[in-house]
Amino acid sequence: MTASLPDIADVRDAAERLAGLIVTTPLIESPVLNERFGGRILFKPETLQRTGSFKFRGAYNKISSLSQEERRGGVVAFSSGNHAQGVAAAAAMFGLKSVIAMPSDAPETKVANVRRMGAEVVRFDRFRDDRMAVVKPWMEQGMALVPPFDDPAIIAGQGTIGLELMAQAAALGVMLDAVVMPCGGGGLSSGISIAVKDASPQTAVWVAEPEYFDDTRRSLVAGRRVGNEPGHDSICDAILTHEPGVITFEINRRNLAGSIAVSEEATAAAMRDAMACLKLVVEPGGCVGLAALSSGEIDLAGKCVAVVLSGGNVDFGTYARIMAAA
Amino acid sequence: MTASLPDIADVRDAAERLAGLIVTTPLIESPVLNERFGGRILFKPETLQRTGSFKFRGAYNKISSLSQEERRGGVVAFSSGNHAQGVAAAAAMFGLKSVIAMPSDAPETKVANVRRMGAEVVRFDRFRDDRMAVVKPWMEQGMALVPPFDDPAIIAGQGTIGLELMAQAAALGVMLDAVVMPCGGGGLSSGISIAVKDASPQTAVWVAEPEYFDDTRRSLVAGRRVGNEPGHDSICDAILTHEPGVITFEINRRNLAGSIAVSEEATAAAMRDAMACLKLVVEPGGCVGLAALSSGEIDLAGKCVAVVLSGGNVDFGTYARIMAAA
Repeated sequence: MTASLPDIADVRDAAERLAGLIVTTPLIESPVLNERFGGRILFKPETLQRTGSFKFRGAYNKISSLSQEERRGGVVAFSSGNHAQGVAAAAAMFGLKSVIAMPSDAPETKVANVRRMGAEVVRFDRFRDDRMAVVKPWMEQGMALVPPFDDPAIIAGQGTIGLELMAQAAALGVMLDAVVMPCGGGGLSSGISIAVKDASPQTAVWVAEPEYFDDTRRSLVAGRRVGNEPGHDSICDAILTHEPGVITFEINRRNLAGSIAVSEEATAAAMRDAMACLKLVVEPGGCVGLAALSSGEIDLAGKCVAVVLSGGNVDFGTYARIMAAA
Repeated sequence: MTASLPDIADVRDAAERLAGLIVTTPLIESPVLNERFGGRILFKPETLQRTGSFKFRGAYNKISSLSQEERRGGVVAFSSGNHAQGVAAAAAMFGLKSVIAMPSDAPETKVANVRRMGAEVVRFDRFRDDRMAVVKPWMEQGMALVPPFDDPAIIAGQGTIGLELMAQAAALGVMLDAVVMPCGGGGLSSGISIAVKDASPQTAVWVAEPEYFDDTRRSLVAGRRVGNEPGHDSICDAILTHEPGVITFEINRRNLAGSIAVSEEATAAAMRDAMACLKLVVEPGGCVGLAALSSGEIDLAGKCVAVVLSGGNVDFGTYARIMAAA
């Protein structure tokens, strides 16, 4: 297993492949939030990334790592929406056909964006259907699977955020005490943790998860991969995975300081903070890292902490409702 | 008069003063908007600037251009809110006392932000009171006025956006056919036009104004400064000036291709486009440049056009209402 773990060289290779194709998202800070938390908080808004989330990085890196033969028949993926958009956009850039299986309750804005990019969308029931069974017919027709997170090339692609982050922090002359980001299957966090730990072993890497979907938190505590209890739902559609990936967890159990579970109320409040203090539209699942700052679990006083805001693909209705609740 | 017009050397000096103190706002684009308009549209989000609008640039440059003697007693300004925040933040960085006169109908978020930065806020009636009369008592006590737009140092500071824009476009390997931005008193547009025309005389510089507050449009047509008709109101609180400035109009009449008046409906639709396609919170007055793209007055087909989104300071209630109207 460990032989196939991606490392810093893979992340650097991914950065070379992505150069000029991605937005180098800036670091943004807010005096109001700095004052509230008593430290310096630097936000990395992957909301501004191509397709509105970080997912394009991993999807493009994965497709570019496939041989001509492997990708000849096109690509297939399953996703709640952000990975779907990343795969559809990357496939279009390679001139490949793509089929995306999306949950029946995925936000309409995500489904519409995927179709607009030329992908064929098929729907599945997030609670009932086996994702692999849903995409199997297309794989049997010769389409290559682009997995959402548990894949070395996907992880390395997402890790390019960590390279940027460390270089941008260094350019500001600051040493990051901690980095915090959302966690679903763990592709984002495992990738970023490789780059952060390579540049600065003493920087703590934290993740945040929605209440009841804190499988990575409970897996870290248990020391082995543990799934979520069924019967719950969450507004954080982008990061509702049942359990950590095999590869992502192997990396995360070495690199993470821990995971913080946040409530829907804290997530909604963080979305309002992002709107008022950062002028950024952040979707629920993209905002749990900011929400985790209020938990008190991360030492912020006098520290410098980076927070990745991982996506901004949220429907008008949901967003208006959360803003109006201020 | 022309002897006191700021030029490209003043803008470059301002950029040196501001280096390291401002956010170099990125250029963002959206495949959806590019497809809709049939060209390549590059957005410069000054919403991400310190204090949530471009105004910090001019305010800081103005205060730093004052002598120790001139600024010893602190600074005073009148503003609907964005200039107020820029002045308050810049004054705090210089350790100066600041008094800001704000209209009684200024958004509460702007008033609260100004107070949080340590400024004293006094209110005035936007329709009835003479702004200069309101700030006169503080000037008589030895405070230096930081004017909102009609001042060479203010204009030069805002012009640094144009320097960044042209350098960023060049780095992307594109030639800008046009630049479009909001216009109130003309500080932003006159400053940016200096930098744009210096780098690329053939690039058309357009401004956009709210319907009924299109004093710059009518002044350009008349060939002299013309005020707005009374009796109208607008959601675009940031750019509701009665008439162009003397200095700003002298520059704008030479450099602008024209001004486009946009309706409130078009402005609200542009705010929704910024949310959905760019994940950016843009206030009404900050979004009229994007709204102007739908007017048909600017040739977009096959062109490359930059749009400045000048601010994002909008109340939750107003924003939620506009998002919910999708």
